[in-house]
Amino acid sequence: MTNLSELPLRDDLVGQLPYGAPQAVVPVALNVNENTHGIPEDVAHDIVARVAAAVLSVNRYPDREFTELRESFARYLGHGLDASNIWAANGSNEVLQHILQAFGGPGRSLLGFTPTYSMYPLLAAGTGTEWIGVPRAADYTITPDAAAAAMREHQPDIVFLCSPNNPTGTPLGLDVIEAVYAASQYENGAAIVVVDEAYAEFSPEGTPSALTLLPGRPRLLVSRTMSKAFAFAGARVGYLAADAAVTDALRLVRLPYHLSAFTQAAANAALAHSEEMLGMVGEIREQRDRLLRELRALGYAPYDSASNFVLFGGVEDPHAVFEALLARGILIREVSLPGQLRVTAGTETETTAFLEALAAVGPNGRGPSAE
Amino acid sequence: MTNLSELPLRDDLVGQLPYGAPQAVVPVALNVNENTHGIPEDVAHDIVARVAAAVLSVNRYPDREFTELRESFARYLGHGLDASNIWAANGSNEVLQHILQAFGGPGRSLLGFTPTYSMYPLLAAGTGTEWIGVPRAADYTITPDAAAAAMREHQPDIVFLCSPNNPTGTPLGLDVIEAVYAASQYENGAAIVVVDEAYAEFSPEGTPSALTLLPGRPRLLVSRTMSKAFAFAGARVGYLAADAAVTDALRLVRLPYHLSAFTQAAANAALAHSEEMLGMVGEIREQRDRLLRELRALGYAPYDSASNFVLFGGVEDPHAVFEALLARGILIREVSLPGQLRVTAGTETETTAFLEALAAVGPNGRGPSAE
Repeated sequence: MTNLSELPLRDDLVGQLPYGAPQAVVPVALNVNENTHGIPEDVAHDIVARVAAAVLSVNRYPDREFTELRESFARYLGHGLDASNIWAANGSNEVLQHILQAFGGPGRSLLGFTPTYSMYPLLAAGTGTEWIGVPRAADYTITPDAAAAAMREHQPDIVFLCSPNNPTGTPLGLDVIEAVYAASQYENGAAIVVVDEAYAEFSPEGTPSALTLLPGRPRLLVSRTMSKAFAFAGARVGYLAADAAVTDALRLVRLPYHLSAFTQAAANAALAHSEEMLGMVGEIREQRDRLLRELRALGYAPYDSASNFVLFGGVEDPHAVFEALLARGILIREVSLPGQLRVTAGTETETTAFLEALAAVGPNGRGPSAE
Repeated sequence: MTNLSELPLRDDLVGQLPYGAPQAVVPVALNVNENTHGIPEDVAHDIVARVAAAVLSVNRYPDREFTELRESFARYLGHGLDASNIWAANGSNEVLQHILQAFGGPGRSLLGFTPTYSMYPLLAAGTGTEWIGVPRAADYTITPDAAAAAMREHQPDIVFLCSPNNPTGTPLGLDVIEAVYAASQYENGAAIVVVDEAYAEFSPEGTPSALTLLPGRPRLLVSRTMSKAFAFAGARVGYLAADAAVTDALRLVRLPYHLSAFTQAAANAALAHSEEMLGMVGEIREQRDRLLRELRALGYAPYDSASNFVLFGGVEDPHAVFEALLARGILIREVSLPGQLRVTAGTETETTAFLEALAAVGPNGRGPSAE
């Protein structure tokens, strides 16, 4: 085997490592914010039935415009949307990549409020877009004034607002989005404002979505994923809602036939059962709130979360705690934030296993007695 | 709806139209070089069974390294390859995009011999790579000397050799690939040499693959697809074989979890039946050779083809012929080459329908009497 350094790799990739959340097989995996509940059996049957139907014509290219799927998403999202407002791709990462290909690229910039989803700067780099990271407040919140000031100062071509934010769980008020959008019209030009609602379904009941802000805001895009609340991470389906002109723009950069016939069939089946698919959300919210309570009781400092995970501070040695938990069969996430770790809200049993193990390993991973 | 021109679209996309082979529903679709034979029933059952198994854990992200699939491809390809030599993505377009993201991009260039696959310049544009189109000879062949001279003149960072070529069907000798590779080492730097064998399975029995040239050539990449001979266009699976350092490089640019659990399951099932899946290749070759013979007998000038389609000249009014055939329920392909059209070799019945309709509409679409 040749060494990678002997190949004519792009200069900006030299020395980089691939995205690498560990994929260890462990009894309790709470590291990548999956829905740890399997999908309901009757939905599984319906997915298989639709895939079986799709197999019959799999020798043909799939519907390039994924029309039925766009109609399914429009129906699911409501808010007066129709198929022309919907885009989808193989995971919301690909949706975001399409946005950067259409509106970013060399000479253009993407702004995000850090810490935020670790793929944003990678997607920027992959499309030659300049990444501008603006730090959040110490408690990871953003105020409308601070967000608008950042827009005025940097005048980015695109802004990504993660709502609620990953990896911090921080909810984002609609007032922040309104302020960012208002500040996104510059003297020369304007920005695309993306609200990444990957975890929105886990917000407290009644929390309004950025979808409510779409009318009259043609540069506002609201992206979603089926990977989290829908328990469909393996199917790789992300989507967004926006003005129909936006989906026309994304059509210019997507690879033709980017969504397979199986992906379209499976997602249509899942969306036909959306209420049932989202049936576990209530229980996950309970476990999230339980994590917030019990982590605090254990002496840690969890951050407010509207998501299906909790970031908590007060960890003396995050790497040691991560390893000590892994040794007990529990995988959580190191997030490069000092003294902090992130854990997904699992089933009640998984959450219990995590909390008990954490109590046993203590804040430096050497057991509670080591304190 | 807002007008697209009111959005801050990238300058180089303004005024562009999306890739648009028509997706009309017609009785005889011979326009996008699909395998018009459905897949065998027992293979279909096995695919559904494997997808059904994958549904059980679809709430989890898929294997990011698609290890089992890479092993399946290595076994299928032979030539001493193992999983470390294999890459795969959602269609060979995405495989090629990964190559351009890793080795192309702003300040770098991609060379191809035109006319060739229409996605090459689009993929170059999408990644900011300069496209260099070098015209083929009048009969669409390339000689080793001409190819090497083009390499020396343009010193591209990447070269795509479509073998056999689309849309012309032209076979490519291994001597051309050897000459291009030999010329790809420059005084300062070197090029990545990609042989796109999307249609290689349709070449005459015994035609050697560029896979035989891989040993000792770490910058040689051989890409393939399951969309054509494998009758799997709807599943969107492309792949390549190369030195393991190349697959390491591609791992840096792919989006994490780019291949869904369903895609991996379905492709593994199909590859477990590769001999049966490729069972229709012989009949398709026969229909291709029949097209060459009968088009000539009808007075057209078909080009030599080692693929599952035939490009033919001698058409007085290609657009009128295209429309006249479409009115008879037969969809073929306009390819922007003067006096030429492209048709896929279908089943015997489909091929007969096309040839009879073409005889009826004549070279200007107004009927044979109009000559």
